[in-house]
Amino acid sequence: MSQELRAVDWTGSGLALIDQTLLPHRTETVDIRDVDSLVDAIQRLVVRGAPAIGAAGAYGVAIALIQGEREDWTDLQILQAVARIREARPTAVNLMVCVDRVMTRFAEGLDAVLEEAAAVQREDIEANRAMGVHGADWLIKKAGVDRPLRIITHCNAGALATSGWGTALGVVRELHARGRVEVVYADETRPLLQGSRLTAWELAQEGIPHYVQADGAAAGTILRGEVDAAIVGADRIAANGDTANKVGTVALALACADAGIPFLVAAPTTTVDLATATGDDIHIELRGEDEVLEWGGVRTAPAESRGHNPAFDVTPGRLVTGLVTERGVLEVSAGELPGERLK
Amino acid sequence: MSQELRAVDWTGSGLALIDQTLLPHRTETVDIRDVDSLVDAIQRLVVRGAPAIGAAGAYGVAIALIQGEREDWTDLQILQAVARIREARPTAVNLMVCVDRVMTRFAEGLDAVLEEAAAVQREDIEANRAMGVHGADWLIKKAGVDRPLRIITHCNAGALATSGWGTALGVVRELHARGRVEVVYADETRPLLQGSRLTAWELAQEGIPHYVQADGAAAGTILRGEVDAAIVGADRIAANGDTANKVGTVALALACADAGIPFLVAAPTTTVDLATATGDDIHIELRGEDEVLEWGGVRTAPAESRGHNPAFDVTPGRLVTGLVTERGVLEVSAGELPGERLK
Repeated sequence: MSQELRAVDWTGSGLALIDQTLLPHRTETVDIRDVDSLVDAIQRLVVRGAPAIGAAGAYGVAIALIQGEREDWTDLQILQAVARIREARPTAVNLMVCVDRVMTRFAEGLDAVLEEAAAVQREDIEANRAMGVHGADWLIKKAGVDRPLRIITHCNAGALATSGWGTALGVVRELHARGRVEVVYADETRPLLQGSRLTAWELAQEGIPHYVQADGAAAGTILRGEVDAAIVGADRIAANGDTANKVGTVALALACADAGIPFLVAAPTTTVDLATATGDDIHIELRGEDEVLEWGGVRTAPAESRGHNPAFDVTPGRLVTGLVTERGVLEVSAGELPGERLK
Repeated sequence: MSQELRAVDWTGSGLALIDQTLLPHRTETVDIRDVDSLVDAIQRLVVRGAPAIGAAGAYGVAIALIQGEREDWTDLQILQAVARIREARPTAVNLMVCVDRVMTRFAEGLDAVLEEAAAVQREDIEANRAMGVHGADWLIKKAGVDRPLRIITHCNAGALATSGWGTALGVVRELHARGRVEVVYADETRPLLQGSRLTAWELAQEGIPHYVQADGAAAGTILRGEVDAAIVGADRIAANGDTANKVGTVALALACADAGIPFLVAAPTTTVDLATATGDDIHIELRGEDEVLEWGGVRTAPAESRGHNPAFDVTPGRLVTGLVTERGVLEVSAGELPGERLK
């Protein structure tokens, strides 16, 4: 079913988004027909994952055009609406890249915009499939063992985070198809539990054996020798290989480096932002305090406490053993820098 | 109020334990008068934290004696009950050490047992006070800055985890008393939230500025330069300085080593187990899967998912910049090994 799973789907007149805040217990679709709803859906993480947000943003240009026509907007109003979509989340570069790509055909009208958005989505799936093959080949070679592998992942970089198949989970799916997955450790990924709600759900659908664990368990599980490799996605990759991904990721990278096992980042080349020199230049989104002070609307921390809630962290390129894109694997920590190899 | 806070208090006829599963929203005391209730309270984490469990275990010998008299137990039955208390949690060494210490006076009868248990508790508080002074002196010197410090801690190693004052939080309290705390980052500490429920509660009571954050945020916060030092407690320390503490701790240690800032472990010498050569010999308690698959009794992960729930991880001694006990600070990563210095 994973091949069919579409987190972002154009219905002909609007955008159908699987409401990822309700998974795994409810699978409901939100029908988006105006810009406000799209921006809200992106910010509330109804749709999340850099490539999926990119696809939603690409179709968002069409939504702005249709709404503009319906409500008699000026061109300036339409452009302002597109700008709001483009900036709905600050860290993921795919959103901006995809919106900008579709905007190159804005002057040609709605059909051209829809054609380009569909191309964005189709190419994303193709990229994920290619990434899966490259990543699996590389990991099997790197691991240097004949048995199925024990993989750890963080957050969700699966079909739900992309146009389909997945980046990090795309590599896992490919390994599984080759009979090379023993078990996946899925960090639950606080505060919003994308790991236990979404990754575990995708793995369960595929019948891939997995454990959900607290994020704090990740480094210890790696250092105890229970893991052969980490595979994660990315929200933005700087020219030097510094990688922004869901908060908690860098702990896996530090532990993998300490344990001497591969830390693999899987992301399409659209996630590599050559205009960003290093991780220091990546803006880290700070989300609302309540996400860490509450649970399901019930306060868990004392009333006096403040919350610190960065949505991402930056893994230094020196800790990224491999970066797999649709073009192949760069061994970043060994000196193959995206800024030089992906120009 | 922290000086007065007693997680474990002998009432004259039984043991009053603050029910730490209900904090911060309810402060209730459980009255323990039989061995079954004590073992249950230790296993359910009504009382937790290695030194607090040690004190509870020390008084537990008295409870076994009183219950044995009340219910006409044989000496063998009493000894079996004491053994059950001693083994209620496998990782914390203090429990075993404190029970064994009190048992040396078992033959002298109840008064002697109670006297020894009270001494355990009194000495624990004195040790915490001394640790606070030694740790604060060392950290201020190590940090090499004149401004108040930004501290990160994990789990709860405060008054609630001890007989009073606290180990890691004892150092924080001492620094605060000297006007040297800018802010404390308290990791929430999944799955049971000892950080957001207990540490934040203690910090709020003291008026110490603090942020609660997801455990995944710890390493990134350190690598971004937002922290001057990490201070944590310990459940068992091997002769070579390998330190078992709440799962998630080793990620802080890895990040501190990478960032070049001090990682300080605060624990009484009773936590150092010279009979344990290295961390590989420390038994790590695996707790129930539901703790990571559910929240407040509501399932968050898919029904098909399994949970992996180690309660502790082991930080290699090479990552422990300082180990502060009541006797002073050992610079473990620089080669001052507990097995040699604390014999």
